Amino acid sequence: MQARLGDLATLLAGTLVGNADHLVTRIGPLETADAGTIAFLANPRYQAQLATTGAGCVIVGAAQRDAAAARGACIVCPDPYLAFARLTQWWAAQTRVRPAAGVHRTAVVEPGAWLHPAASIGAMAYVGAGARVEADAVVGPQAHVGADAIVGAGTRLAARVLLGEACRIGERGIVHGGVVIGADGFGFAPAQGHWEKIEQLGSVQIGNDVEIGANTCVDRGALDDTVLEDGVKLDNLVQIGHNVRVGAHSAFAGCVGVAGSARIGRHCTAGGGAIILGHLEIVDHVHISAATVVTRSIHKPGQYSGLFPFDDNAAWEKNAATLRNLHAMRERLRALEKKG
Amino acid sequence: MQARLGDLATLLAGTLVGNADHLVTRIGPLETADAGTIAFLANPRYQAQLATTGAGCVIVGAAQRDAAAARGACIVCPDPYLAFARLTQWWAAQTRVRPAAGVHRTAVVEPGAWLHPAASIGAMAYVGAGARVEADAVVGPQAHVGADAIVGAGTRLAARVLLGEACRIGERGIVHGGVVIGADGFGFAPAQGHWEKIEQLGSVQIGNDVEIGANTCVDRGALDDTVLEDGVKLDNLVQIGHNVRVGAHSAFAGCVGVAGSARIGRHCTAGGGAIILGHLEIVDHVHISAATVVTRSIHKPGQYSGLFPFDDNAAWEKNAATLRNLHAMRERLRALEKKG
Amino acid sequence: MQARLGDLATLLAGTLVGNADHLVTRIGPLETADAGTIAFLANPRYQAQLATTGAGCVIVGAAQRDAAAARGACIVCPDPYLAFARLTQWWAAQTRVRPAAGVHRTAVVEPGAWLHPAASIGAMAYVGAGARVEADAVVGPQAHVGADAIVGAGTRLAARVLLGEACRIGERGIVHGGVVIGADGFGFAPAQGHWEKIEQLGSVQIGNDVEIGANTCVDRGALDDTVLEDGVKLDNLVQIGHNVRVGAHSAFAGCVGVAGSARIGRHCTAGGGAIILGHLEIVDHVHISAATVVTRSIHKPGQYSGLFPFDDNAAWEKNAATLRNLHAMRERLRALEKKG
Repeated sequence: MQARLGDLATLLAGTLVGNADHLVTRIGPLETADAGTIAFLANPRYQAQLATTGAGCVIVGAAQRDAAAARGACIVCPDPYLAFARLTQWWAAQTRVRPAAGVHRTAVVEPGAWLHPAASIGAMAYVGAGARVEADAVVGPQAHVGADAIVGAGTRLAARVLLGEACRIGERGIVHGGVVIGADGFGFAPAQGHWEKIEQLGSVQIGNDVEIGANTCVDRGALDDTVLEDGVKLDNLVQIGHNVRVGAHSAFAGCVGVAGSARIGRHCTAGGGAIILGHLEIVDHVHISAATVVTRSIHKPGQYSGLFPFDDNAAWEKNAATLRNLHAMRERLRALEKKG
Repeated sequence: MQARLGDLATLLAGTLVGNADHLVTRIGPLETADAGTIAFLANPRYQAQLATTGAGCVIVGAAQRDAAAARGACIVCPDPYLAFARLTQWWAAQTRVRPAAGVHRTAVVEPGAWLHPAASIGAMAYVGAGARVEADAVVGPQAHVGADAIVGAGTRLAARVLLGEACRIGERGIVHGGVVIGADGFGFAPAQGHWEKIEQLGSVQIGNDVEIGANTCVDRGALDDTVLEDGVKLDNLVQIGHNVRVGAHSAFAGCVGVAGSARIGRHCTAGGGAIILGHLEIVDHVHISAATVVTRSIHKPGQYSGLFPFDDNAAWEKNAATLRNLHAMRERLRALEKKG
Repeated sequence: MQARLGDLATLLAGTLVGNADHLVTRIGPLETADAGTIAFLANPRYQAQLATTGAGCVIVGAAQRDAAAARGACIVCPDPYLAFARLTQWWAAQTRVRPAAGVHRTAVVEPGAWLHPAASIGAMAYVGAGARVEADAVVGPQAHVGADAIVGAGTRLAARVLLGEACRIGERGIVHGGVVIGADGFGFAPAQGHWEKIEQLGSVQIGNDVEIGANTCVDRGALDDTVLEDGVKLDNLVQIGHNVRVGAHSAFAGCVGVAGSARIGRHCTAGGGAIILGHLEIVDHVHISAATVVTRSIHKPGQYSGLFPFDDNAAWEKNAATLRNLHAMRERLRALEKKG
C-alpha cells in the first residue's frame, strides 16, 4: 500500500504544500513518523512536535501551515482531525479484504430466513427463521442472528456477535465481537421471599450508523422496546438496560452502565465507568465525566461530575475517615459560628 | 395472540370488573395503552395515570379498584405487580416457540455425554465428554457445555453460553448469551518479580431457579467451589470471583463485581456497579446501593451506601479540591474550638 | 488421584516432617481438610487454624514448623504460598486431559493458515488465512483466530475466545472464554453533529506468560499497537483501550478499565473496578486500590486510593449532602479563622 501526496490532498479536499509525487506507505503518529509516513496535528498544543517529526507529510490546520511547511510537506485542511479520520477510512477501504458475498458452507441458515444475495454469512454463523439480512451486510464467523431479527444494509456483525430474536439494527452499523443484543432485561417481582420473573416481551431497535463495542450488552425491553437512535456509539463492556432510549449521536465510553428505562438525550457523552440510574431523564448535550454516578434527572445541558479525587493512600485514608464525620463537622462549624 | 379478560382474571386469580368477553392482544404500559392492551398499576403514586390511559383493562390492587373501575375494565389482585409478572409468563408461554427436543445435526456431542431425550441441543453447540443435560433443558445454538458439566432439568442456556468443565447448574435456570461460568479464578503467588499461577481446581455449583445475565462471569473456585444458591438473579456484566458464595434469592444489578471468597447472605441486593471486596462477609437482607464499594464485612441487615454525589462540573471541582484537604480542615476546626 | 507426602516434599523442594508414605487425594483449605487432604498456611495470622485442622499434611514456613509438627505431618518450605501454587500446577498437570493435537473435523481452517502439527484446533473453531498456531498451542472449541493472527507455542485459547486479525499472543499464555482481543478502539472525530469513524489500523501485541480473564477486551491500536508485555495478568471483564501499554508483570483485578493511550509501568497492580483515564503515565510499582479513578499521571511508586467510604444509608446521606457544600464550609471556616 502506497499513496501519492497529491492524491491524498485531493481525497481530503486540502491544499498540498510540497511534492505531489512523494509516496507514503503508512499513517502514523508524529513521534514515530518517517519519510514514508503521513501524520496529523489536530491539537495546537502539540505544535512543537512539528519541529522534530520525521514525517513525510503532516495534515494541519491553517494556523499551523507555516510551522508545518518550514519542515517539509503538509496538507492544509479546515479540520485536520476530521481529515485524518477520513484518511483512515480510505486507507482501510484500500487495504482490507471484504468478506465474500454468499453463505459459508458451514453456516446454518434456518428455513424462512431472507438473505440479500450481496450479504455475507460467515463460517459457522447462525441465522434464525424469519430473519432478514440486507444488501452488503456481513454476519461474521460464529455470529448469531436470531429468529425474525433484521440486519440493515451495509451493517457488519463481527465474529461471535449475538443479535437476539426480533431485534433490529439499521444500516451501516458496526457491531464488535461478543456483543449481546436482546438478552432479557432484569425484571422480577418480589413474591414471598423469591423473585418471580417478568418475561421481557419487547425487543431492541437500533438506528443507522450505530457502532457497538466488544462484549457490550443491550437488553430487550420489558413491554416496549429498548432504543438506540441513529449515530449512537458505544464502547466496550457497556451495559444498556431494558427500555433505555439513547438519543442520536450520543457516545458512551467503556464500562458505562445505564439502568432500565433511563432516557438519554441526543449528543450526550459519558466517560468510562459512568453509571446512569434507571427511570431518569437526561436532556440533549449533557456530558457525564468518567466514573460519575448520575442519580437524578439532568434538565440542563453541560458537564456533570462526581468522582472521589484519588491521592496517595495515607492522605486518602485521613480524608476518607474525616469524610465519615463530615456532617458532624458541619454541626461543629455551626456551633462555632453561633458562638462567634 | 388474543386473550379474553375473563380468562385472564381466572389465570391471575383476580376479580374482573367489566366485560369478560373483551379481547386484548398486547400487554403494554399505561401511557401507550389502547383498547386492545392490558396494563397494570403497581405503584399508587402513578394512580393519576388511570384517568388518562386508554387501556382496555388495568390490573390494580384493591385500593385502586374504584378509580380503575370508573374508567373501564379492571382486574383486582392482591399484588398487581406479581400478577403482571405471572401474566407476562403466561403470555410468553403462549407466543414463544420452544426449541425442538433432540440434537441439531451440526452440534458436536462428545462420546460419553448423556443427553435426556427431551433435551434440546442447538446448532453448532458443543457438549463435552461426561456432561449431562437433563429433561427439557435447552443448550442454545453455539453454546458450550464442558466435560463433566451438568445442566439441570428445564434450564435454558441461551446462544453462546459457556458452562465450563465440571460446573453444574440446577433446574429451571436461565443463562443469557455470552455468560462464562467456570473460567479460572484470579489466583497467583508472587515469585521474584513474576506471578506464579495457582491452578484453579474447584468448580461452580449453581442452584435451582437461578438467572444469569448476558456476558456475566462466574469463576471456578481455587480449591473448593464457587456457589450461587437457589433463586439467585444476576444481571449483565457481573463478575463473581472464585470461592464466592451468594445466598439464596440475592439479586445483583448490572456491572456489579464481587471479589474472591466474599460470602453474601440470602435476600441481599446490590445496585448497578457496586463492588464487594474479597474475603468479607455480608449477612442476610443487606442492600447495597448502586456504585457503592463494600470494603469491610456487614453484620447488620439494612441499606448501605457510599457514592460521591454528582454535580455540575464547576461545583464538583470546588468540592473535590476541598475534599483533598478535608483532614486539614478538621484540624483547623479543632484549633478554633480549642481557642473558643 | 493420590500422592505420597514424600514425593510431594521432593517436588516442592521442602522438608517433610512426618510419614513419607502417607497418601493425600486432594488439596484443600485448612478448615475443611481431612486426613486425605494436603493444605497450606501462608499467612502467620491464621496460625491458630493449625490446632484445629484435620489435614493430613500442611505446607508451612519455617516459623510455623513447630506448631505444624505438633499436630501432624508438614512440609516446610521457604515460601509456602509459592509452594502451594506449584503444587496446584503439578496437580492440574496430573489430572487434566490435554486436548489432542490436530484439527477437529468441524473446525474451519482457511487456506494459508499455518498450524504446527502439535497444535490443537477444537470443534467448530475458526482459523483465518495467514494465521499461525505454534507448537502445543490450543485453540479451544468455537474459538476464533483471525486472519494473520499468531498464537505462540504452548498458549491456550479457551472456548469462544476471539483473537482478531493480525493480533499476536506470545508463548505459554492463557486466554479465558469470551475474551475479545483486537476489536476496534473507540475513536471518532466530531463532524457537524455526528461522529466520523477513525478506522483502527493498529493491532494488539501480547507478550509471553500473559493470562487474560473471561470476557475481557483488549482493543487494537488506532495507528500503532496496543501492548501487553510479558507476564501481565488481567482478570475478568477488564477493558484495555486502544494504544494502551501495560508493563511486564502488572496485574489488574476484575472490572478494571484503562482508557486509550494510557501507559502503565511494570509490576503495577489495580484493584477491582479501578478506572485509569487515557493519555496518562504510571511508573513502575504503582498500586491502585479497588474502585479508584486515576485522573492524572503517577510519577512515584506507591499505593494510591480514592474511594468513597460506605456507611449505613442514613449516615451516608447526611455526609453526602454536606459534601455538596464542602467548599462553602471551607469559606465559613476561613471567615471564622479571620475573625478569631
